[in-house]
Amino acid sequence: MPDSFKEKLKAKWDEGKFVCVGLDSDYSKLPHSFKTYSKEESLFNFNKSIIDQTFDLVCAYKINTAFYESEGSEGWKALEETCKYLKENYSDILIILDAKRADIGNTNQKYAQAFFDNLKADAITINPYPGKEAFMPFLEYKDKGIIIWLGASNPGTDKFQDLLVGESQVPLYQVIAEQITDSWNHNGNCAVVVGGTYPEQLKKVREIVGDMPILVPGIGEQGGDLEATIKNGLDSNKQGLIISSSRGIIFASSGDNFAEKAREAAEELHKKIKEILA
Amino acid sequence: MPDSFKEKLKAKWDEGKFVCVGLDSDYSKLPHSFKTYSKEESLFNFNKSIIDQTFDLVCAYKINTAFYESEGSEGWKALEETCKYLKENYSDILIILDAKRADIGNTNQKYAQAFFDNLKADAITINPYPGKEAFMPFLEYKDKGIIIWLGASNPGTDKFQDLLVGESQVPLYQVIAEQITDSWNHNGNCAVVVGGTYPEQLKKVREIVGDMPILVPGIGEQGGDLEATIKNGLDSNKQGLIISSSRGIIFASSGDNFAEKAREAAEELHKKIKEILA
Repeated sequence: MPDSFKEKLKAKWDEGKFVCVGLDSDYSKLPHSFKTYSKEESLFNFNKSIIDQTFDLVCAYKINTAFYESEGSEGWKALEETCKYLKENYSDILIILDAKRADIGNTNQKYAQAFFDNLKADAITINPYPGKEAFMPFLEYKDKGIIIWLGASNPGTDKFQDLLVGESQVPLYQVIAEQITDSWNHNGNCAVVVGGTYPEQLKKVREIVGDMPILVPGIGEQGGDLEATIKNGLDSNKQGLIISSSRGIIFASSGDNFAEKAREAAEELHKKIKEILA
Repeated sequence: MPDSFKEKLKAKWDEGKFVCVGLDSDYSKLPHSFKTYSKEESLFNFNKSIIDQTFDLVCAYKINTAFYESEGSEGWKALEETCKYLKENYSDILIILDAKRADIGNTNQKYAQAFFDNLKADAITINPYPGKEAFMPFLEYKDKGIIIWLGASNPGTDKFQDLLVGESQVPLYQVIAEQITDSWNHNGNCAVVVGGTYPEQLKKVREIVGDMPILVPGIGEQGGDLEATIKNGLDSNKQGLIISSSRGIIFASSGDNFAEKAREAAEELHKKIKEILA
């Protein structure tokens, strides 16, 4: 069985699976019937239901750590149990921890221990600000995916990613994309994040990064344009995209039928992608 | 008693206290005698010993979340207990959660819940990359400190903070410092981080941010220059600095006398600052 981030991802793409379900499992939004459990059980049981209903449609689950940290040590326990459940039952599907971590080297070493050694994630998202030297502790995990946040999906017009840099006045996110391609990716384990709400950025990034995987959040609830995303984001093998939807899938219904409705939403996204690709 | 981040900080500065002890409590480096406890107890007891020996010398404790996340839910429990202990016993001392978080708004809302509502931190460090709009959920906490990471203390020469930006070719960290001063600080609750290993950056940042508090890590183990830091970093009241040392204090000794040695190291730093200020 394929084992590294890139091999596992390629295997899923070969099965025609591009959907990533974002487990932004906001405790305050869980169906009412879950509130009889402990927070830890509620969050884990909710995730388990979503996973069991969607596993055959997806290439990855993206777990946003903020939604677990907000519930304290009980939330972190639910994060641990969710990762363990995925590893034990669906080890062919990628676990992406959407943590956007970034610090200096000796701190990043500890984050790598948290996410790669302990939680056994296949990939983590990072924020590029401190530069490559700081991220060596992540980049040295050859079999893990290091997914660098280039372009945010939020509507702000004051993002530093868009500032024009250097003598040639190129937007910062493009400068970072170039550095990642030329220098950070020596182990072939890098990927990037570009919001589905900015298809023009996606086009530019694809030109720069070649066949590097691109994670695209913001499809669904945030209004990202799926057709433009696929048109602008495919790699030379007509693959290359991890298309992520969170709230639009996991909270498709707030009732007890949430898991079935999540499957319907995931299936709809899966089918739409298939149609656009055809 | 002063209650907001800025009031509490000002009160400590007025007492002549500028030292911040960084609780980068690396489980693998704890004294041997601590390994008989659970991880949760080991980490908390270690922190408690350090705090009880240094509380009268410091303005703040800076808790680096990576060193707790690396020990999973037990580590997070120790983080909760440490914050609770500080609030219950030393509520006049600032709790800074050094988390370097950054994401889009609805995720940052959850991080704010984790750090401000639950852990009751007085301040959090953030990574500016996604821009102001994304950080509104933090900035709206008027009484909390939002400490923006401008300049890293690590030796990398490939940091994006140093790229020259715009037509006037100003380093990115200065552009960000200007934006924070002009626009992010409408609630007066912003502060910035500049590594003590780069005193020239500190000088430039102080010129830009006026009397905004500056957190300076990297003093001690990382070799930051204390005299240059103070000379370049003081505000117009000859205050304005949170001078942080982590490993140099908490791991001054690896033996059972670690807490006494930590006090000696903290006291030495406190005295040196006093001398330089005099």
